[in-house]
Amino acid sequence: MTLRSVAIIGLGLLGGSIGLAVREFLPGVATTGYDRDGATRARAAERGLVGQVCASAAEAVREADLVIFCVPVGAMGEAAREVVGSLKPGVIVSDVGSSKQTVARELAEALPGAAIIPAHPVAGTENSGPDAGFAALFRNRWCIITPPDDCSPLQLTALVQFWEALGANVELMSAQHHDLVLAVTSHLPHLIAYTIVGTASDLEEVTQGEVIKYSAGGFRDFTRIAASDPTMWRDVFLSNKEAVLEMLQRFTEDLTALQRAIRVGDGQQLFDHFTRTRAIRRGIIEQGQDDARPDFGRSDHIS
Amino acid sequence: MTLRSVAIIGLGLLGGSIGLAVREFLPGVATTGYDRDGATRARAAERGLVGQVCASAAEAVREADLVIFCVPVGAMGEAAREVVGSLKPGVIVSDVGSSKQTVARELAEALPGAAIIPAHPVAGTENSGPDAGFAALFRNRWCIITPPDDCSPLQLTALVQFWEALGANVELMSAQHHDLVLAVTSHLPHLIAYTIVGTASDLEEVTQGEVIKYSAGGFRDFTRIAASDPTMWRDVFLSNKEAVLEMLQRFTEDLTALQRAIRVGDGQQLFDHFTRTRAIRRGIIEQGQDDARPDFGRSDHIS
Repeated sequence: MTLRSVAIIGLGLLGGSIGLAVREFLPGVATTGYDRDGATRARAAERGLVGQVCASAAEAVREADLVIFCVPVGAMGEAAREVVGSLKPGVIVSDVGSSKQTVARELAEALPGAAIIPAHPVAGTENSGPDAGFAALFRNRWCIITPPDDCSPLQLTALVQFWEALGANVELMSAQHHDLVLAVTSHLPHLIAYTIVGTASDLEEVTQGEVIKYSAGGFRDFTRIAASDPTMWRDVFLSNKEAVLEMLQRFTEDLTALQRAIRVGDGQQLFDHFTRTRAIRRGIIEQGQDDARPDFGRSDHIS
Repeated sequence: MTLRSVAIIGLGLLGGSIGLAVREFLPGVATTGYDRDGATRARAAERGLVGQVCASAAEAVREADLVIFCVPVGAMGEAAREVVGSLKPGVIVSDVGSSKQTVARELAEALPGAAIIPAHPVAGTENSGPDAGFAALFRNRWCIITPPDDCSPLQLTALVQFWEALGANVELMSAQHHDLVLAVTSHLPHLIAYTIVGTASDLEEVTQGEVIKYSAGGFRDFTRIAASDPTMWRDVFLSNKEAVLEMLQRFTEDLTALQRAIRVGDGQQLFDHFTRTRAIRRGIIEQGQDDARPDFGRSDHIS
C-alpha cells in the first residue's frame, strides 16, 4: 500500500520532527496535524511542521492513511478516543511512545477494530515543544516496531518503509521485549539522572551554585537527560512500571556491592568493575550511536 | 615570584595537557617531565608534551620552581618519595588530584618541610594516556586550589596565576569542602555511571548488543564517564571514601522515594521532582559549563 496522507496527533519534539522529516524525505506525502494546546497549534502552523494544522483531531485524521499519536504515553487513550468514528477504512494507527505494552492496550481499547501497529523511534533530545523538532532527528537512529500477532503484512511493510524513508533503521520485536530493553537503555538512566540531580540540589553543605560551577567533573552529563519533559517521563515510569522496578532492583544490588567495596577498601573489585565497563562504550562508538570525540567534542566549541 | 621552570610528574591526560598548555600560553616557561612508564615517556617525547622528558622524577624536578604531580591519587605518596632530596629550595609542590585531604596529607608526609599547595583542575575527558592531552583542556574550566593555613601568599599567587594563564578560573576553598563538593559533582556521578553500565551488561533477558543498539535513549550519556581511567577512579573512591559514602547514602534515599512513587503510582510526586531538576540544567548552560545545543549538537555530525 502507498501512504498518501499522514496525520500527526501531538506536535511536540517527536510529532514536529516527523512532520518536518516527511516534508524533506517524502515530499509526495501530505501531512495534517493537531495538538490540543492552541499555542502549540499556532506555532506549528508558523514553523510549517505539517501541511495543515487542524482544529480537531477528528478533522486531522479524516483523510489519513497513517495516524501517528505523538502524545505522552499516559494521554494516548484519551487522544485516540477523540478520533473514534473519523478514521478512514484501512488506516494504520501508530504512535511513538516509549513504552509499548500499555500503549498497545490503550489504543486497542479506544479504537476497537482499528489496525494498530505501535512504534517507538529511539531518538530525542532534552528539548520539547513545537520549536524542538528537526527533520534529521531520526537519521541513523533505531525505530522499534512491535506488531501484534494478527498484523497485516502489507500495513506493516508500509510502516517500516515510512520510518526507513525518514532515515531510521527499523527493528521488529514484541512489545514485552521492547519494554524490557527500553527499561534498561532509557527509562532507568532517566530515573537515575533525575534522582542525582535532585540529590545534588538538596544538599545543605554544598550550594546549588557550586554544583553548577563544578558540574564539568561528571555531573553535567546527567543534567541533560534530567532536563527532559516531565509529563512524558512521569507517564513512561507509570506505564512501564514493572520492567522499570525490576531493572532498578538490579541496579540497587550492584550499587550496594560497589558501596561495600569502597567501604572495605577493596580496590581490586573496583578496578575490575571499572575496566569491564569500557567495552560497552567502545561498542556504542563503533556502531555510530555516539560521538567518539573526547567530551562529545564539547571542548571544540565551548568558550 | 616568577615561575621559570615547571616539572610535570605523570604524563597522561592531565600532565600532558598542562605541558601543551604551558608551551602555548606560557612560552617563556621551561617544562620537564617524567612518567614511570617507559612507553609513555617515549610517546610524550614524540608529541612534545614537555620540553624535556627525563629518565627519573628526581632529574625532572631538579631545576623546577613548580612541581606538579599528575598521577592517580593513590600513587601520589610513592611519586613524591622519588623526589626527596632533589627539590630546589623555595619550590612549590602541587598536584591535580580529584581528592584533596588525602593527597595533601600524603604529599606532606613524603616531603616534610616542602611548600605544598594542592590543586584540582575540574577538567578532563573520558580518554587517558599520553595521546589524550590537549592545550585547551583547562579553558573556561574551574581550578580549585586548597591552600594550607600556613601557605605563603607569594607562592599561592604564583600558582593561581599559573592556572589562570592556562585558561582556568581559579577558586580557593578548604580541602575538606573540596572533597564534599567533588563527591557530589564528580565522584558520585562516576560511581553511578560505572554501576549502571555494569548492570546493563549483566542482564540475561537483554543482550549487550541490544544495550549498545538502543543506547541513544539515554544510556549512552552514562557510558562516556564510565569509560574513564579505572586506576584513577579506583583511587578516587578509596581516597575520598567518607564523602562518597555520605553522598551515596543520600542518593539511595532519594532513589528509594522515587521508586516508591512509581510503585504506588504517585504521578504528582514524579512530575514535581522532574520539573525541579530542569532548573539546574539551565544554570549549567547559562554559566557556560555545557553545550546548549540539543543533544550536545550530536545530531549535527553523527551520520
